[in-house]
Amino acid sequence: MKYLKDYNDGDRVFDIYLCKHKVSAVTKNGKPYESLILQDKTGTIDAKVWDPSSAGIAEFNALDYIEVYGDVTSFQGALQVNVKRIRKCREGEFNPDDYLPVSKYNIEDMFEELTTYIGKLENKYLKQLLKAFFMEDKEFIRVFKLSSAAKTVHHGFVGGLLQHTLGVVRLCDYYCNAYPLLNRDLLICAAICHDIGKTREISLFPQNDYTDEGQFLGHIMIGTEMVADKIREIEGFPVTLASELKHCILAHHGEYEFGSPKKPAIIEAVALNFADNTDAKLQTFTEILENSTETGWMGFNRLFDSNLKRTKAE
Amino acid sequence: MKYLKDYNDGDRVFDIYLCKHKVSAVTKNGKPYESLILQDKTGTIDAKVWDPSSAGIAEFNALDYIEVYGDVTSFQGALQVNVKRIRKCREGEFNPDDYLPVSKYNIEDMFEELTTYIGKLENKYLKQLLKAFFMEDKEFIRVFKLSSAAKTVHHGFVGGLLQHTLGVVRLCDYYCNAYPLLNRDLLICAAICHDIGKTREISLFPQNDYTDEGQFLGHIMIGTEMVADKIREIEGFPVTLASELKHCILAHHGEYEFGSPKKPAIIEAVALNFADNTDAKLQTFTEILENSTETGWMGFNRLFDSNLKRTKAE
Amino acid sequence: MKYLKDYNDGDRVFDIYLCKHKVSAVTKNGKPYESLILQDKTGTIDAKVWDPSSAGIAEFNALDYIEVYGDVTSFQGALQVNVKRIRKCREGEFNPDDYLPVSKYNIEDMFEELTTYIGKLENKYLKQLLKAFFMEDKEFIRVFKLSSAAKTVHHGFVGGLLQHTLGVVRLCDYYCNAYPLLNRDLLICAAICHDIGKTREISLFPQNDYTDEGQFLGHIMIGTEMVADKIREIEGFPVTLASELKHCILAHHGEYEFGSPKKPAIIEAVALNFADNTDAKLQTFTEILENSTETGWMGFNRLFDSNLKRTKAE
Amino acid sequence: MKYLKDYNDGDRVFDIYLCKHKVSAVTKNGKPYESLILQDKTGTIDAKVWDPSSAGIAEFNALDYIEVYGDVTSFQGALQVNVKRIRKCREGEFNPDDYLPVSKYNIEDMFEELTTYIGKLENKYLKQLLKAFFMEDKEFIRVFKLSSAAKTVHHGFVGGLLQHTLGVVRLCDYYCNAYPLLNRDLLICAAICHDIGKTREISLFPQNDYTDEGQFLGHIMIGTEMVADKIREIEGFPVTLASELKHCILAHHGEYEFGSPKKPAIIEAVALNFADNTDAKLQTFTEILENSTETGWMGFNRLFDSNLKRTKAE
Amino acid sequence: MKYLKDYNDGDRVFDIYLCKHKVSAVTKNGKPYESLILQDKTGTIDAKVWDPSSAGIAEFNALDYIEVYGDVTSFQGALQVNVKRIRKCREGEFNPDDYLPVSKYNIEDMFEELTTYIGKLENKYLKQLLKAFFMEDKEFIRVFKLSSAAKTVHHGFVGGLLQHTLGVVRLCDYYCNAYPLLNRDLLICAAICHDIGKTREISLFPQNDYTDEGQFLGHIMIGTEMVADKIREIEGFPVTLASELKHCILAHHGEYEFGSPKKPAIIEAVALNFADNTDAKLQTFTEILENSTETGWMGFNRLFDSNLKRTKAE
Amino acid sequence: MKYLKDYNDGDRVFDIYLCKHKVSAVTKNGKPYESLILQDKTGTIDAKVWDPSSAGIAEFNALDYIEVYGDVTSFQGALQVNVKRIRKCREGEFNPDDYLPVSKYNIEDMFEELTTYIGKLENKYLKQLLKAFFMEDKEFIRVFKLSSAAKTVHHGFVGGLLQHTLGVVRLCDYYCNAYPLLNRDLLICAAICHDIGKTREISLFPQNDYTDEGQFLGHIMIGTEMVADKIREIEGFPVTLASELKHCILAHHGEYEFGSPKKPAIIEAVALNFADNTDAKLQTFTEILENSTETGWMGFNRLFDSNLKRTKAE
Repeated sequence: MKYLKDYNDGDRVFDIYLCKHKVSAVTKNGKPYESLILQDKTGTIDAKVWDPSSAGIAEFNALDYIEVYGDVTSFQGALQVNVKRIRKCREGEFNPDDYLPVSKYNIEDMFEELTTYIGKLENKYLKQLLKAFFMEDKEFIRVFKLSSAAKTVHHGFVGGLLQHTLGVVRLCDYYCNAYPLLNRDLLICAAICHDIGKTREISLFPQNDYTDEGQFLGHIMIGTEMVADKIREIEGFPVTLASELKHCILAHHGEYEFGSPKKPAIIEAVALNFADNTDAKLQTFTEILENSTETGWMGFNRLFDSNLKRTKAE
Repeated sequence: MKYLKDYNDGDRVFDIYLCKHKVSAVTKNGKPYESLILQDKTGTIDAKVWDPSSAGIAEFNALDYIEVYGDVTSFQGALQVNVKRIRKCREGEFNPDDYLPVSKYNIEDMFEELTTYIGKLENKYLKQLLKAFFMEDKEFIRVFKLSSAAKTVHHGFVGGLLQHTLGVVRLCDYYCNAYPLLNRDLLICAAICHDIGKTREISLFPQNDYTDEGQFLGHIMIGTEMVADKIREIEGFPVTLASELKHCILAHHGEYEFGSPKKPAIIEAVALNFADNTDAKLQTFTEILENSTETGWMGFNRLFDSNLKRTKAE
Repeated sequence: MKYLKDYNDGDRVFDIYLCKHKVSAVTKNGKPYESLILQDKTGTIDAKVWDPSSAGIAEFNALDYIEVYGDVTSFQGALQVNVKRIRKCREGEFNPDDYLPVSKYNIEDMFEELTTYIGKLENKYLKQLLKAFFMEDKEFIRVFKLSSAAKTVHHGFVGGLLQHTLGVVRLCDYYCNAYPLLNRDLLICAAICHDIGKTREISLFPQNDYTDEGQFLGHIMIGTEMVADKIREIEGFPVTLASELKHCILAHHGEYEFGSPKKPAIIEAVALNFADNTDAKLQTFTEILENSTETGWMGFNRLFDSNLKRTKAE
Repeated sequence: MKYLKDYNDGDRVFDIYLCKHKVSAVTKNGKPYESLILQDKTGTIDAKVWDPSSAGIAEFNALDYIEVYGDVTSFQGALQVNVKRIRKCREGEFNPDDYLPVSKYNIEDMFEELTTYIGKLENKYLKQLLKAFFMEDKEFIRVFKLSSAAKTVHHGFVGGLLQHTLGVVRLCDYYCNAYPLLNRDLLICAAICHDIGKTREISLFPQNDYTDEGQFLGHIMIGTEMVADKIREIEGFPVTLASELKHCILAHHGEYEFGSPKKPAIIEAVALNFADNTDAKLQTFTEILENSTETGWMGFNRLFDSNLKRTKAE
Repeated sequence: MKYLKDYNDGDRVFDIYLCKHKVSAVTKNGKPYESLILQDKTGTIDAKVWDPSSAGIAEFNALDYIEVYGDVTSFQGALQVNVKRIRKCREGEFNPDDYLPVSKYNIEDMFEELTTYIGKLENKYLKQLLKAFFMEDKEFIRVFKLSSAAKTVHHGFVGGLLQHTLGVVRLCDYYCNAYPLLNRDLLICAAICHDIGKTREISLFPQNDYTDEGQFLGHIMIGTEMVADKIREIEGFPVTLASELKHCILAHHGEYEFGSPKKPAIIEAVALNFADNTDAKLQTFTEILENSTETGWMGFNRLFDSNLKRTKAE
Repeated sequence: MKYLKDYNDGDRVFDIYLCKHKVSAVTKNGKPYESLILQDKTGTIDAKVWDPSSAGIAEFNALDYIEVYGDVTSFQGALQVNVKRIRKCREGEFNPDDYLPVSKYNIEDMFEELTTYIGKLENKYLKQLLKAFFMEDKEFIRVFKLSSAAKTVHHGFVGGLLQHTLGVVRLCDYYCNAYPLLNRDLLICAAICHDIGKTREISLFPQNDYTDEGQFLGHIMIGTEMVADKIREIEGFPVTLASELKHCILAHHGEYEFGSPKKPAIIEAVALNFADNTDAKLQTFTEILENSTETGWMGFNRLFDSNLKRTKAE
């Protein structure tokens, strides 16, 4: 497969890409045409179908995988595909991994490590709760593995939610050794659950966009409700333990202005907030460095409120 | 009954009061005694039982109603009851209304007005939801009618939650006439539900204090969860409608720093935030004026961030 | 009349429009031409007079109404009028209402309702003050009826100030019933006067822009001064009443950062602040919804600090 | 005269003091007595008249000057006067300067310097405006000379407003030399007028407290209105000049949160804000150092948001 | 030795304590006496020497260790020592560890672990820099081991600076494994140095108070300067590396309002900020829990901006 | 010399300009060319060398002065030089003052005035410190005279740092007369040193950009370190005096959010903060007015948080 980032002006295109957007439009002269955006995991490219009678045009929609035949031209400094022919593809003809950003760590390996943490919990209620999600709820497991942790910013790829969750769990595991007053079972359980609301806040790839429910309620509220629902099905789940766990999830953004309706009131909630923030920010910085070739100052970054730079440390 | 605010130094006490606190203590000389706080709806008074063998001392606890026999003395500028004898009272001997602050409006009248609003809703799902709470759930109805809307600040009395809820509903009803784009059913339903979480955030009188769950989760989260639970039992409840209703509750404080994890995103959520804030602040100012005899400037008030004054408007 | 929003590429233009701007310019080749912006109540369009000897060019200025003869062309994706001939029009040839945004409520009806509120006041000083403005000062009445309440944001149309004032007065009237401690005469009078400074802060349509005085002083200061001036002419106006009224106007934005030099210190000032804010925000949201055809999320709105959405409430 | 700061336990008192407060009270045993606060420019002392039949008790009120005969005792670590006899004094028996804090600079000298600045103005309108206040309005001149610039914080003494005004005028005069784009006449005039509203915001000594008008409107609003009133009487006063001058007064606190409803928009308003702030803060720090004998760290100061220290600079 | 926390009313005192404060005072009757505060690691107690001719009174000063002979009495609810005889003690008669709060971890063990981290660094310049402080500068080593990390809040005990530094280093070590883009040598070196300025900002126990230099400059500035001084003595120290290291120290508080003049601009500075904040906050919460016996809500805590609670996690 | 601002479409270019940038690029057709930016003190212009074999192309770099031969054309509304021939120039062929923005005051005159202030200091340590910088350190003197005070905003020209420093010193000199408690030697010395860190924070013209060290540490930290270094070489420099001086530099931005790690704690630090801020803001406003021909409102300015206007003051 030829990746989009490798095309130059004048190249011939004949390969399968994901159609991200598809819009019908009209030229200034009143002629109808189709405007597409093609995507693979290396980026996107504009494509135009000037002849509405081109073969295959009517047979596909946005988010379909299509085989494109055409030529690359340059328009106003950007490349564009002048499409001659299109064919909608069937599953099996392409490997979705070529079209979506994916975690660089193996998803099954990460998930297995996560379930190992669950296996080591001693509190039977918390263990039962986590099993209900991560071992018994097949649909939840499927979506959790595929979810990204964000639309942009950090961990915005398939497996991103899992990778971030694992990063937070590992940090919490470390904290439990270093600060003995922490209740390991509560903290590990809260870390595993802290972002599960994202499975409903953000739709799966290739869309990877906020859902209505996500916009209206946010993953903090959704996740707390998901936990509350499962707890209701576990007989004898201690009332205070339920409140403490839900509190950790509610408070994990640490500040009101970041969407937490409560500030951390128990030490595990404080710890979870640090673990979440540490993993998110260090991963964000890592992605900024990986996506840039700049060796000097990279310009002002709004999230870090600073001009950023790759460390030299000669 | 003689109210606590009417006692003077030298008076004899022989009446029934609520025992708010009861603590065993020891004098500097090492003699044990009991320290009480007596309460009625006009205020509180300290009381001491210097003789541990006084009749009735061992037979009651805090939050019991007790008949007190003793004398009023003055100690360091404050009145104090020197208790000789105590008798724990049974229900029926006293009228709880004499001991707790109560709304000046009739609770049953207010509740009936609230149910009238429910009766007029046209959306069958919202109507069914409200009926499940306010017509079918006897325990919820009992607690809702007795709850205060706050530990302090405003509406801090029996029936306060109902009175505040009704004030907000009426304002929203007015808004619906004045701003026709508002969806009446959604706004009225959200107004009725907006503070139901307070039935679990704050315990009933005479305690009227934050519960564990209230501290950990807050009434916004609790109320949203209560609504979510009832919705789950209503077949066919539209998904978007559920999100919109829950969003109104989540966002009704209007700002992150006031504990709302989401800012209002639909016009009904904006309206509910104004109704809640208007009723709360005008009632707070009303209570400040009613509880003060000052005719000039009343001093700096932190909530209003200003020195406050009773209007003269001669 | 053909509205600007209805033109397409290739149409012939021959109708009367308001000339919003008129600037002389020079092409890259050094040829002089005139650049105009035409306006009607449906929007604006660019127009060019390439031939400086075109008939009528020299005879009009910005803010004149002109009859335009020419052709619509498309330039860089936007429509443009290639003007051949222009004729300046006289009053009577056009209906100004076609060229300016106007309240959808009848201005005279609204004004009559406002004077009815004045008629019902009992305090003779406040009544006399309002009569001096709204019944005796013909020039003030003329301007007040035509003013908008804002350059943009909300109520930005002819009659907007009147419509907003009436909305605030009605809310205050409602508050007076619901919160009996409010002094009706003071609150209604303050509501009627609260934005009169806008008659001098923003010039009338078609300009509808900040005046020098408006920029330097703001409508809060101007309005307070206007009230102070009229009060000086009313013998025996009580000193405290004058301070309370001026305070309500000064404090009606509620917060220092919104330009109020004082925070509300009396309950009527608190109420006025809520009424002003409620009417402004609900009208703003209404205008956002009316001006958009988007049925999903409408994008982040800076004023509401949220992504906004049209309610579905199915 | 013996100053209050020089009394010790056991001393006999027989001198004239200002009676700052006078309250009737009752002992725990039910005996009536009078509680006074005596003041001179060195401080205050509590005084009690235990025998209600003491000579002279009924004949004076708070803010009278009284001759006190009695003994100094020590109560709970503080000195107190046990009063035997009192006599109300007439004007002429005492020198008010002994009882009130007064500027250490001569008031007449300062006022003459201020009028010299007025004399040098070239703009006839501004000059006429200032003359109307500072040369022709006798009552204004009397009050202006006696006013303090604040209830506490800085320049809280007789002549304080004049001293602060002069400090600001001198700084502005310096700025005009250093930054030639500044319009001297406008800036000097604005500096002279910037705090004249304090003559009505704070009552004269010995009260020196906020007036109702001061609380409701603040000196920024009052001063702007005073200037507007005088301008109205000056024929031909240019409209823009009036706006610029009023703007400088409105904006002289520089920030919304300090009560300015407008931010400085012209360079003279920026300069006036700096002059006002510089003189206020350096005088405040000067008074802190003068009123303390601490040679090390003086503790956290809320205004400066720092622990403060007397400079050693050995 | 009998600890102060174990005394009761009526006990005889005859043991050695640290004299924290010593002040001469006079009773209301004019009799001179000495007021002391005695301290050991369990707390403090007031002590009075009523008879100025008591043996040993003149021979000691604050911060001396003294043998006290006297009786415990109760005054206004608090215990007090009525001192009869005092003897100043020599080094050797007492173990300072009994009088000062000390880390619960062995100081030498912690220091050895710290030097092990230094030994493993690969960058020769950073290693040489750390050796110059932590292996060659005997006075620095002595003070560093004894310093607390704060006057109050967290790690406020002998060895506290070392314990906190080690906690931060270990976290950074963990981060380096989890986030491979981090430069280990730079981060570990910055972590070890980040708070060395505290050796000069806060004086050693028993004083443990801010120094003049500490108040004027703060530990961030002092520490950066200390590092700059040592770097100047190391030939060939790379310029950029020096800037990066100093930047990490300057930025380690993460926000301007916490005293960092720069926001983190490189990933190691971001990591150090998280490590410092995580260790500080989790240790603070740990100390709050260890110093309280409250099992319910512990009340509002200003640092955490929340009511805090000991986790139940039943 | 013909200034860049005077060129029109079609003009011939044949003069010397500073080459600000030089980049090799490729046309869409794959032909290599050179893209330059030419600069003189009146502005900049784009220039293209389409023929890579043009004379002189290979012989110069960015920041060289070059003689350019070519034609001015208009491209997309902006002028551009089509370059035919280039010649690198030697020092002496051009006057750098024609190419860089320079203070309108004579640099040597300003520097002499500054040294006069130094000569009048009485404290021998402070005097010796300033001499070490401003009389003995030739390289420092050379750079200090050429430095700008900012990359943009204010004093962004050759000599700007000197001009700003002098402005601040003069203000402080004035303050010392007006507020006698100020220590003149400390304040004048701190004023002279307050921005010396800018000599290393920003590179000299024509670059005038932040250095790595400047980005990492900032001029406040750098300047404090420079002062600390010189102090170390002065025997007997009093410890407290050193702290006070360094504190003044650290705190001269006045607020944490402006990069000061300490708030002013002594009166001289307060004064320096005002002098720095006053000179910076009044110069900024002066430059805004000098660089604009607008006579009305100039639009919203982010620094002043206001729409700005040239004063009319008719």
